[in-house]
Formats: sequence, C-alpha cells, structure tokens
Amino acid sequence: MTDTDTNNPLTPDQQAEVDALRTESHATLRPTVPELEEVLYQALPVLDRGFVRVIDYMGDDAAIVQAARVSYGRGTKRSRDDRGLINYLMRNWHTSPFEMCEIKLHVKLPIFVARQWIRHRTANVNEYSARYSVLDNEFYVPDREQLRAQSASNRQGRGDLIEADEAEQVMEILREDAMRSYAHYEEMLNEGPDGERVDPERQGLARELARMNLSLGFYTQWYWKVDLHNLMHFLRLRADPHAQFEIREYADVITNEVMKRWVPATLAAFENYRLNGAQLSAQQLDVVRRLLAGEEVERSSTEMSPAEWRELMATIGRD
Amino acid sequence: MTDTDTNNPLTPDQQAEVDALRTESHATLRPTVPELEEVLYQALPVLDRGFVRVIDYMGDDAAIVQAARVSYGRGTKRSRDDRGLINYLMRNWHTSPFEMCEIKLHVKLPIFVARQWIRHRTANVNEYSARYSVLDNEFYVPDREQLRAQSASNRQGRGDLIEADEAEQVMEILREDAMRSYAHYEEMLNEGPDGERVDPERQGLARELARMNLSLGFYTQWYWKVDLHNLMHFLRLRADPHAQFEIREYADVITNEVMKRWVPATLAAFENYRLNGAQLSAQQLDVVRRLLAGEEVERSSTEMSPAEWRELMATIGRD
Amino acid sequence: MTDTDTNNPLTPDQQAEVDALRTESHATLRPTVPELEEVLYQALPVLDRGFVRVIDYMGDDAAIVQAARVSYGRGTKRSRDDRGLINYLMRNWHTSPFEMCEIKLHVKLPIFVARQWIRHRTANVNEYSARYSVLDNEFYVPDREQLRAQSASNRQGRGDLIEADEAEQVMEILREDAMRSYAHYEEMLNEGPDGERVDPERQGLARELARMNLSLGFYTQWYWKVDLHNLMHFLRLRADPHAQFEIREYADVITNEVMKRWVPATLAAFENYRLNGAQLSAQQLDVVRRLLAGEEVERSSTEMSPAEWRELMATIGRD
Amino acid sequence: MTDTDTNNPLTPDQQAEVDALRTESHATLRPTVPELEEVLYQALPVLDRGFVRVIDYMGDDAAIVQAARVSYGRGTKRSRDDRGLINYLMRNWHTSPFEMCEIKLHVKLPIFVARQWIRHRTANVNEYSARYSVLDNEFYVPDREQLRAQSASNRQGRGDLIEADEAEQVMEILREDAMRSYAHYEEMLNEGPDGERVDPERQGLARELARMNLSLGFYTQWYWKVDLHNLMHFLRLRADPHAQFEIREYADVITNEVMKRWVPATLAAFENYRLNGAQLSAQQLDVVRRLLAGEEVERSSTEMSPAEWRELMATIGRD
Repeated sequence: MTDTDTNNPLTPDQQAEVDALRTESHATLRPTVPELEEVLYQALPVLDRGFVRVIDYMGDDAAIVQAARVSYGRGTKRSRDDRGLINYLMRNWHTSPFEMCEIKLHVKLPIFVARQWIRHRTANVNEYSARYSVLDNEFYVPDREQLRAQSASNRQGRGDLIEADEAEQVMEILREDAMRSYAHYEEMLNEGPDGERVDPERQGLARELARMNLSLGFYTQWYWKVDLHNLMHFLRLRADPHAQFEIREYADVITNEVMKRWVPATLAAFENYRLNGAQLSAQQLDVVRRLLAGEEVERSSTEMSPAEWRELMATIGRD
Repeated sequence: MTDTDTNNPLTPDQQAEVDALRTESHATLRPTVPELEEVLYQALPVLDRGFVRVIDYMGDDAAIVQAARVSYGRGTKRSRDDRGLINYLMRNWHTSPFEMCEIKLHVKLPIFVARQWIRHRTANVNEYSARYSVLDNEFYVPDREQLRAQSASNRQGRGDLIEADEAEQVMEILREDAMRSYAHYEEMLNEGPDGERVDPERQGLARELARMNLSLGFYTQWYWKVDLHNLMHFLRLRADPHAQFEIREYADVITNEVMKRWVPATLAAFENYRLNGAQLSAQQLDVVRRLLAGEEVERSSTEMSPAEWRELMATIGRD
Repeated sequence: MTDTDTNNPLTPDQQAEVDALRTESHATLRPTVPELEEVLYQALPVLDRGFVRVIDYMGDDAAIVQAARVSYGRGTKRSRDDRGLINYLMRNWHTSPFEMCEIKLHVKLPIFVARQWIRHRTANVNEYSARYSVLDNEFYVPDREQLRAQSASNRQGRGDLIEADEAEQVMEILREDAMRSYAHYEEMLNEGPDGERVDPERQGLARELARMNLSLGFYTQWYWKVDLHNLMHFLRLRADPHAQFEIREYADVITNEVMKRWVPATLAAFENYRLNGAQLSAQQLDVVRRLLAGEEVERSSTEMSPAEWRELMATIGRD
Repeated sequence: MTDTDTNNPLTPDQQAEVDALRTESHATLRPTVPELEEVLYQALPVLDRGFVRVIDYMGDDAAIVQAARVSYGRGTKRSRDDRGLINYLMRNWHTSPFEMCEIKLHVKLPIFVARQWIRHRTANVNEYSARYSVLDNEFYVPDREQLRAQSASNRQGRGDLIEADEAEQVMEILREDAMRSYAHYEEMLNEGPDGERVDPERQGLARELARMNLSLGFYTQWYWKVDLHNLMHFLRLRADPHAQFEIREYADVITNEVMKRWVPATLAAFENYRLNGAQLSAQQLDVVRRLLAGEEVERSSTEMSPAEWRELMATIGRD
C-alpha cells in the first residue's frame, strides 16, 4: 500500500453519503463479521486517487465449513476445527466451498488497470458509463519512485529507477497531456453543469465519442462482485511480482485490509498454501531430491533454462 | 407446490439446528430484507421430501439500482424511482446490475432433478458427497396425479394421467425397487452407525462404489449459490411448462416464496417482461401486423410450422 | 459496414503472411465449410483501420444437429431436416447445441470498443500486450457523418449530425491530440526499432507506463474465440440500434460476412427468432390482444411508460 | 486404461456410421493434426462399455504460440521455439493462449461418473435425453480388482481389495439389481421398438418418470466440448490419485491417447509443470530449505499435520 492513507480519495459529498450509510444498523440472522463491518463503505485508498470500498459481503470462515459439510446448522462447534478443515480444503484444491463466500467492492482505478482487471471473467461488473455520463477530471500520475525503465530480466515489466531529469520530463508530459486531453474533452462536449450548452453556437459532441480523447491514465470506477475462490485466484496472479505495480497495489489492499478482516483463517491458509508456497516442476523436484540425497547438481545436467534454474535456486534458498 | 406444506421435511435434530441459528441476531450495516429474514434457514417443502432453505443473501431491490448507478450511497431516494429503473433495466436487457444480488440456498432434491439443475453452469455448488458419507434412505415417489403417460404433443414431456390399476403397479415398482436397492446398498457397505462392520466377516464395499446401486429417484442435497440474473434465467427455463414437473416445483417455490420476499420489485418486472410476456419471431410479428391491419391471415400464407402457428394463436388469445 | 472495403487494413508484410497461410491446404476428416474457407485469414475491413479475420472454426450447421442428437454419425440425412431442427432449437431456447460450434477471430479495434466487447465474458481472449511490445501509431477517426451530438431520446447514444465547422474542429482535436500523445509515448519510450536508445542520455520509460499516455481511440488487437451461442448473444446486443455505432460495425461484419458463410441455416433462424423478432411484455401483449379484439386502446388505460408505448406501436407497425 | 481395447464398445451399426464419416476427406486451410485425424470419430474404449470419441478439434501446438503472439501468420518459424514458448507459458500460468485450442468429444460413461464430470463448468455439454428417448440397457460392472473396501487413509476413496466371496456377492447384487430395474423400466414404459404399446391395456409411463428407476451405474452419453486450458484443469484434478478410479480411467485415455496425439509439446509441458511437479506450502518449503542446509528436521518442530508431513516426505523422496 502507498502512504496515501491520510488522503481521503472521496469528496466531502461522497464521504457524507458513506457516513449516512454507516449510521443505519439493521438486525440480521445472517453470519456477520464485525471486523469487516468496521470498514464497510469506507474508501481504502490506493494509488494517488483510487480506492477500494467494501459494499457488501456474504459469509465468513465458518460459512466455508458449513458449505463443505452441506450442514443444516453452522459448520463445526469449534473455530479450531474450522481452521483445520479450511487448511485441508485449500491444500487439496477443494475449491467449491470457498465459492460460497461472496464480496462486493466499489473500486476506483485507472483505465489501464481496469483493462487488466477485467480479464478475470468469473466476476460481476458494473462500470460507470462514459456513454451516459461525463467522466471526472482525474488521472493517475505515478510516484517518482515508480518511474522506471523497461526491465532487462522481466521482459514485460519495469526495472531501474529513471533519473531525476528524465523523470521530471515524464511527469510533465503525463500531466500536461492529460490536462490538455481533458480540456479538449470538455470543449468537444460543450456541456455545462446542468447539461446546457457552454458555447450556445455549438451542438457539442456525443459523450460516447468525446471520451475517445481521454487517455488510459484516467480513472474509472466500478462495482465488482466476486466469490472468495475467484478473488484468491485474482490475488494470486495480481499480487505476484510479475504483475504491474499499479494493479498489485489494489491486490495488496484487498489481501491485507479486506481478506484479513473478513476471512482470517482462509487468508492464513491462502498465504501458506498459495502465496508463499512454491510450485516445483518435475525437473525441479528431481533436482531437489538429488540435492537432498547429497549429490552436487549443476544446471548443465538438467534440461532447465537459466531462468528456471535461477528461480529454483531462489525458491530453495540457494541464491 | 404440492400440499406437503404441513409436512416438515426436516428431522427433529435438523429442525433444532435451524432453530438454534434463528436465535442469533446480529447487527449489520449491510442492506437487510426483513421479509426474507422471516424464513431464513427454514425448510420450504417441495415434492414429498425435498426442500429449499435460504441460507444467506446479498443485496435487495435497492442494491440493483445502486450498482446500476455505481453509487457512493444508496441508489435513489424513493423506492418508486427504484422500481422505474428496475423496469427499465429489465426491459432493455441490462443484466449486470441484477448480478449484483446473490442468494445461497440449501436444496434437497431427487438426483434426476439435480442432473437437470446442474446444467445451469453460472452458479456455485457444494453437493453432499456419497464418496465420503452414506446417503439417507429417502427417495421420491410421485403423487398419483403426476403418474402420466408420454405426451403426444410435447415429445419430451408427460401427458394423460394413467389409470388407477396401472398407477398402482407403477407406485409399487418404484417403491419396491428403491427399497431393495437401498437394502442392498446397506448390505454392500456393511457399516454400522459408528462405522463398525455389521457382519464382522465382511470388509464392506467402498461408499463410492456401493452408491452405484441407488437409483435416480433418491434424494441428494446441495448448497447452491447464484446471482439474481442467473437465478431468473434458471427460473425462466425451469418454471416453463415444457420443463419437467418436478423441477418446476422447485422453480415455483423459489419464485413465489423466495424472490417475492427478497426482491419484490424485480419479481414484478421479471413477471411482466419475461415470465408472462412473449417472444415473437419475425414471421409471427408479421402476422400480428397483418391481423391488426384488418387482414385475414391463414397459416398457409406463412412459412410457420403448425406448432408455431398454434403457439402464436395461443399467445394472442385466438385459440 | 463502411465503404472501406477497398482499403486493405493490412500492411504488405502482414498480407504476405496471410497469403502464405492461404497456400497450405491440408486434408481433414472434420466438417469443413468451403464458403468460409474462401475468406479464412483474410482481413475483413471495419471502421477506418480495423478488421475481423477468421483464424479457425469448428463445426457447421450440421454439427449443431449432430450434437443435439448425440449422434454417432452426422446429424440428419437431409439438410432440409437440419434446418427444421435448427429452427426448433432456436425457437425453444435449446442453446447447448449451438455451443458445439466455435470460431476464432483476430480483431483489430479501437480500445474503447475493446472495452465494451470484453464485457462478454464467455469467450477466450489474447490481447496484444502493451507491457511487452510497443503499440502502433494507429488511432480511430470517425467519419464526418458519425460526428453527432448527444441523443435527446436515447440518453446514452448519439443523435443529430453536428455541423460542418464544429465537425472540422472536432476532427482536428482528435487527430492532433492523438498524434501528440503518440509522439510523447515514443519520446518517453526512447526506443529505436531494435530496442536501442534513441537519445543515448535517457533510459526510457517502461512500456507498461508509457502507454498510459495513449488515448482510448488507439487501436489494439486480439484473438477472440467464442462458441456460436455466445457469439449470437454478443451479436444480438451489439448489432442493436442502442449499441454504439462503432461496435455495431463489427457486429454487422461478423453477422453478414462471417455467420452467413459459416452457418447459413443458423443465421436464418437467428434473424427470424431473435434479431428481427420482438419481445413483448405482459402489458404489451395485453394491448395487442385488446387491439386484435377490436378495442380502441389508449396508453392512459395501461401502466406503460411513454417509451414503452412508443416502442410497442413501432413494433406492431402503428407508428 | 483397462484391457478392453480389444472390445469395440460400438455396435456394428454405430461402427458403420463412424466408418462412413472416416471416408469423407475435405480440403482445409486450417491447422490440421494428422496424428489426431488417425483416430477421429473412432471409439477409444474406457471401462467395460464406455468410450471417448474425438469428434472435432481446433488448433494445435502452433496455434497456442500464434495466439500468444497475436500473429498475422503462424506462431514461430521453428517448432523448437514453439516448445520453448509453450514451456514458458505453462510455467508462468499464462493460461489464455491454451484456451485458443478446443476439442469436442463424444463420451459414453456411467451416470455416477457423469455427475462428477459435470462439475467442471467451463465446458459445453449435450447429453442424451432420457425425457425424449429410451435409455439403453447398459450398466457398469467393476472389474473384480476394483471391488475394494473404504480406504482407511483417504476418507473418500477405496482401499483394500475385498475378498473373493464377498466380491462375488457384490457382483451379483450389482448385476441383478441393474437387470431388474431395467426390466421394470421397460415394463413401466410399455413401449415397443416403434413406440407402440407392448401391453395394449396399459398406457405406459412417461419416459421422464420411468427413468427414475434406473441406477447410477447405467451408462449415459454426451458431447463435451472444452478448451485446452480447461481440459488440462479437468485432467489435473481427475487424473489425480484422489479421484475415483472410474473417472481417472477417462482422464488417462484423454491424456495419453488424445492429448498426446493432438498437442504433444503442450502435453510435455503439462506433465513437467503440473502432473508430475509438486506444490509445496510455505511450511513445507521451509522444511526443504532447512534440510538442504543440513539441519535435521522433525515434524514436531513444524505446524504440519501428519498427513501433510507424510505427503512432503513422499514428494521429496524420503518415505
């Protein structure tokens, strides 16, 4: 997470709507998670102007157990037993009980991040419509420490920090082009706050066309609803070091602030069996066995690529 | 629905588990639907021994509007506006806001019904495992009025009631074969209530194999979780007169007892725009136009099949 | 379709690759559609620089019948019987046999169109990666006749043509901003054709960041694979007059040039039962019945909104 | 695979239909796989009466590369480069290019296997309809060596072979109950080969009801179409030793007879990175590192369950 916590990404009007929602408490017989209720509707900041808001949730750790057992009542008597079963399910890829929990988020994110995010198809999405409404003048500008050159080792990522002068130029280009394209967007729309023409001589261009002039750094927002299994699949891929920094920021907030409050036993299992574990190929496994048997193993005696070998050495702590 | 309402399909132990769940009320900031809470966890009877239980739900009519607007607060100020927008969304096939509501059901149903149900893929399922556990001795026996001959008009359905003697024989066959196959299932398992051997001389057959001897009329059960859009898709196909009677019974209970309590505005729109509306083909539409223009139209002047023509006449009230 | 047919959207190198593919014929026992083979791999132009290319296909009209019958051989003996069954399946929403045909397209399209397209989740996609590669300098500029003002009746679409001077200004803005943002994209990248630095003093910004400066009008491309049922669902929504003009252009090419060659019997049924038919609500159906019974019906005697009433009158030819 | 290779599971009529299909060769510009064409339409036997038939396929190893590169022509020049890229994609969980290949199978399988199979939702299915047609008198009887007791270690599987006498009894029960229930099915249907009544005094019960009397061991059949990524997901779970023997038999035939012919480079990568590799948890990985550092590690110094510890020891060759 970035250190933007102190910056509330909501406007006072938006915050007032959130505050209003947080005053109305209801009685329910459904499973409820007090730790998650604490942040319900609140904007958890991400990047310079983005956020993740938890809008609703269904289920908790116990609901996973309850579904796995197809129970009439709650899952097990003791939460320790719940943890044991959750570990068992995670370890053995019994994924369907995790699908029995669901979460609904409101996310504000740059369009280029949205384009990566939407590739996860098993989820429900309602995006703010730029055909129907005018987009806000908000675009992402990376922190200086994120302005990096193309990576030499990871062909699709970023590597070294770029130097001060060049970084300054980049910042200026990004800011100026975004401001100019938004100004032109408004000019083409020719729409005042109540929909009236700003320049009475011009008709104004349809919103669905004018938006073409905005760049991929502009923020959009959506409601995104997903089950816990598919959420973890998303997090595993998007919290990975190979994922682009910007989407990783969202993945980190969801993992560490949302999942942690919502389903702590599942998060622990997810970290142990997925995030912090390792997948070894048959060839890599063979090397591990030979090493454990006391053999000296060189890469040349295997069919592994240099990248795979490096990866294995890092995994087993020999780098 | 059958008239089994008076018969609670739960055992006293199961009912006690349900009752326990219904005593624990929690405070939540989430949207809550008191009408649905009234039946939460309760078994709504279907067929002779089946049921539908609502285990959890996410969202309500207002949540659809809120998602459609990608709101910071609730959807609209007035529930009348909510209804208007819900009608608009339903009419224009804007399906994604309906996906923002979710429901989790516990369903007990005959295996042949489960096999039709599972064809709806956009849902989450946890079924009771007959590899892991022993199935109960419960099987479906149709009511006398459901024992019908193959339909002459609908080649995949049932038609005339079969007569008393034959019905009697059928009932007897179904009951006796089910009882015998269950008795043999138990014999092959050779398992006592605590897992001990009944006949100490025999090892007993693995559950995953012994269950092969049970017929498609035996009851299974599962947790089924689905979003409201896909639920309506299921209901539209399964509440249809062409669907098999037994699955229709489940669809009817879900429509009339669950949806009605949960999302009444959506149900009204669903009934108007889907369930009770009609889809006309281009050819059928052409006939309607000609009739409205005062023309006499015979089927022979169209390319419609007799079935399509009959269907059209029924639709427009000319049968 | 636009009249860009004469403009090949492929470069000579790309066309040479296509030509090479078209020289290698293979023998296969699979069902094959000669009419579709005629255009295989060829670019069918859409918009000013976009295209649709058919890369591969599985099945034909007969394969639908074959699957519906779970046949050991082909579906039926006579293609006339195939047509009858296809009509029956389409009319009665038996969708699974249509899922048994599959098509793989290579599509080049503006990013804002790609963002609408990707909302159809039941498909497979491989998009050109702007993290890994540099995007081409190609952006969409609408035809003059597509530069329209916001629609008064359809709140999310375009309406009247905007006048000459204003259109001229819009064109200029779109072109200049696109050219400038691409020039800045290249400047930030600082990458020569072989990956070397253009300005040796600067490191160059990572591709995944520099692309942020490009606007939604730039072209991207992807491989898109979908089954015939989901393709028709896409076409029904995206060939609709409420869809944005630009995506409709793609839908039209796929309908009229791809489906027509590939599955002509299915296309005929699709046009009759879906594209050119009508869905009437229960209220609308009631009005039709009353009109057919000779009654005069006013909107005021119904609960329909003005929009619904107008829509009904248009549907039944009374507008 | 069982040794039923010599038994053709097709009737002579069915085989004649297959032979007819295999005589018609067509010219196509699509990628074609001669090794797979060799078995196209042929029944590959599984269990005592089941089969897998390849009906159609789309793509080959090269098509994966082509999609990954969003190419205008084929993927790479040399098949060695194709292999390298396929390995890279598999290793780094770039799953979308594998979705660009598709296969359509005709499968005949016992109903209890079908019920496990259908849980894989990302696939297309057309099942033989027992509402519309009469099921054949074919049911699965396990080989003697498959008649096993409930496993002590794997709570949902089978363990020791059961002894001769008991096995004999089980075989007899399974056979007799299946034969009786089929005889009663036919009696209730009261249908002759041309649909006429066998007993003219009885109306006969509708097919959709009579089938209730058949057990889960009866064979059904379906067309199943799936992309290569989801096929591998299915195979990974269903070729696993924890899967039930009967579905594993199908998974083995698809892996070793279908994938091997169709996409040999992908199969090699799949075996290396998935089937024969290992997933280590963070805790397991820690133990491996400590062992490699020369430390003696006891389970008691970890938080692993006995099962996890045993699994790890087996994985690293220390059992």
